[in-house]
Amino acid sequence: MVQKNSRSIKTRVQAIRHGLAKQNASCLVVIKPANVTYTTGFTGDDSWALISGRSVYLLTDSRYTEQAEAECIDCKIIRCSRTLAETLTKLTKRLRSVRRIAVEDSTTLASFRALKKNIAVPVTSVGDVVETVRGTKDAGEVEAIDIAASMAAKAIKRILRHIKPGISENELAGVLDFQIRKLGAVNSFDTIVAFGPNGSQPHHRPSTRKLRRKDTVLIDFGVKYKGYCCDITRCFEVGRPTVFYKKVYDVVERAQAAAIKMVKDGVDIVQVDAAARQVIRESGLPVYGHGTGHGLGLEVHELPVVKPQSKGKLKAGQVVTIEPAVYIPGKLGLRIEDDVLVTKTSCEVLTCNCPHSILLPCSKQRFS
Amino acid sequence: MVQKNSRSIKTRVQAIRHGLAKQNASCLVVIKPANVTYTTGFTGDDSWALISGRSVYLLTDSRYTEQAEAECIDCKIIRCSRTLAETLTKLTKRLRSVRRIAVEDSTTLASFRALKKNIAVPVTSVGDVVETVRGTKDAGEVEAIDIAASMAAKAIKRILRHIKPGISENELAGVLDFQIRKLGAVNSFDTIVAFGPNGSQPHHRPSTRKLRRKDTVLIDFGVKYKGYCCDITRCFEVGRPTVFYKKVYDVVERAQAAAIKMVKDGVDIVQVDAAARQVIRESGLPVYGHGTGHGLGLEVHELPVVKPQSKGKLKAGQVVTIEPAVYIPGKLGLRIEDDVLVTKTSCEVLTCNCPHSILLPCSKQRFS
Repeated sequence: MVQKNSRSIKTRVQAIRHGLAKQNASCLVVIKPANVTYTTGFTGDDSWALISGRSVYLLTDSRYTEQAEAECIDCKIIRCSRTLAETLTKLTKRLRSVRRIAVEDSTTLASFRALKKNIAVPVTSVGDVVETVRGTKDAGEVEAIDIAASMAAKAIKRILRHIKPGISENELAGVLDFQIRKLGAVNSFDTIVAFGPNGSQPHHRPSTRKLRRKDTVLIDFGVKYKGYCCDITRCFEVGRPTVFYKKVYDVVERAQAAAIKMVKDGVDIVQVDAAARQVIRESGLPVYGHGTGHGLGLEVHELPVVKPQSKGKLKAGQVVTIEPAVYIPGKLGLRIEDDVLVTKTSCEVLTCNCPHSILLPCSKQRFS
Repeated sequence: MVQKNSRSIKTRVQAIRHGLAKQNASCLVVIKPANVTYTTGFTGDDSWALISGRSVYLLTDSRYTEQAEAECIDCKIIRCSRTLAETLTKLTKRLRSVRRIAVEDSTTLASFRALKKNIAVPVTSVGDVVETVRGTKDAGEVEAIDIAASMAAKAIKRILRHIKPGISENELAGVLDFQIRKLGAVNSFDTIVAFGPNGSQPHHRPSTRKLRRKDTVLIDFGVKYKGYCCDITRCFEVGRPTVFYKKVYDVVERAQAAAIKMVKDGVDIVQVDAAARQVIRESGLPVYGHGTGHGLGLEVHELPVVKPQSKGKLKAGQVVTIEPAVYIPGKLGLRIEDDVLVTKTSCEVLTCNCPHSILLPCSKQRFS
């Protein structure tokens, strides 16, 4: 998607120039890797972009020259033989019309200092101009996330036969990651597999803990396809679920449905967050401490953030996760997470190919 | 290593305080995740540390509280209900002795502004104080890298039977990653598998390209064990190697040996870099554009960097990669990479369990 669609990149760059103009800037140094990808099509690392009023430049080194030539369209590739800051300084001297250089808020103090030291015109930071444009996805981006979600559903179906007593969290994560690779994709983040009480740590790292005959399972994982991420969490209880597990599952599922029901263009983001929390609060179960969701795209966490402190409204074209949960330390963690596309009138669940019950066949076949 | 060794963390923090004092600072906000791990033992994300003259504080949120309590020793855990910057502001108000707050050079402009806005005392940046201390490894850290390297050797041995015509780069990377998981570890970075001309892109991403009967193979991968990374590259040619491939292999191996021979405490880093380049230059083959090596530890790229522009000398206790290469675009890439520990009198190759010929049995069994 990123690489081949020259028109969509031009549209993005135009929107970014518009955002820059609002902040009285005409030239932006892009350092954050996902932003470099978004504005140039280049998917490597350690490279910067410069967006001037007329052109987009990619500054990279010999490790990436071949890749840049294959990936970038409508972008001037500059091979650095010195540091990125030094090469950029040289380039800006050639761009005589530039009166001020803007940098992103995510720029490090070290890079900022290196730029300020050498560049003759003022260097100032602007807000998240690129991230704001990235928040709303174009058709190609939505398609990539959609395909990533379908691949995730396929991958998890293929691991069902491996979920049996004795397998470790680490091995199960490995089996899932391998299936993602076999589908021709990669992980969008480190797979989380948590058995039993480990599930109450929302970002648990898979361990050597082995699956038991009576156990709960939480799998939080994502697929990255053509640079775009999906993010899914599914849970189940091995064997016949207890009354308590069923209750918690029902509450979390209802909390998620309440939030998803709220999602549409123009709704206050806090209302979406509050809808999920309210269902859990009313059930008497502990309310989760993290946000209800986050934007998704080239990064697995991007704008907008769906949390109690969120400001602003949802916009059509945004893709967000909705992931309420219940955590009871020492006992269990249960989270259900789907990815939804905000539309003018409601939303579309992109992860619908991966039903909440996707792990149930495994439970029935192997454990009951 | 990180989690259990309270004494080593105390020693590190003392060294960091010493570095801060040289820069006339007594209190440091640690934001970079690897630096937070190094100074607290905590291995999660989205958390900051504050090192004052007397204590180390970890600021984290509800997602990580359980993990922090399990991992951190001698460190006060503060659970944030608001943003990290707001929580930090509140904390510094309690620390009355603090006259100035230092932040790392890797701090983003956004975080720097958030801190400056709220904190009453001056906030200023200091150089890479933590990274400099991290550059020299203690015994526990070296042991962890050593174990990671042994695991890497085991993992690559286990994939030999999969290397046969028809397997894709992507699948082979998946098979290797799975073996790493099965050993109870994770990747230290995204595995690179490059067949044929793809090898000339030093950071090639595994694709659907399938292995052919006459082909070259480059595998660059690493294992992370207890937070510590190794980084290894091995190459071979499928079937009977051509005279040209043998020549290139011999040159790269000699270039690496020349650099490794230079490694010892007190040697100028540029001399190590120059030794490898000279062998390649004299052979008439193209000299690689990247550095000859980099430090290794909690991150896969850390100080010191071994490149023509490097300043300073190697120090005993540093662990660096040595990875010269020959790239011929459209034809092949051949890189040999090992991890070496700098000692007082010479160096120790930590990746010696993974011989350069590790892939040869596969070639003999399957292709000849």
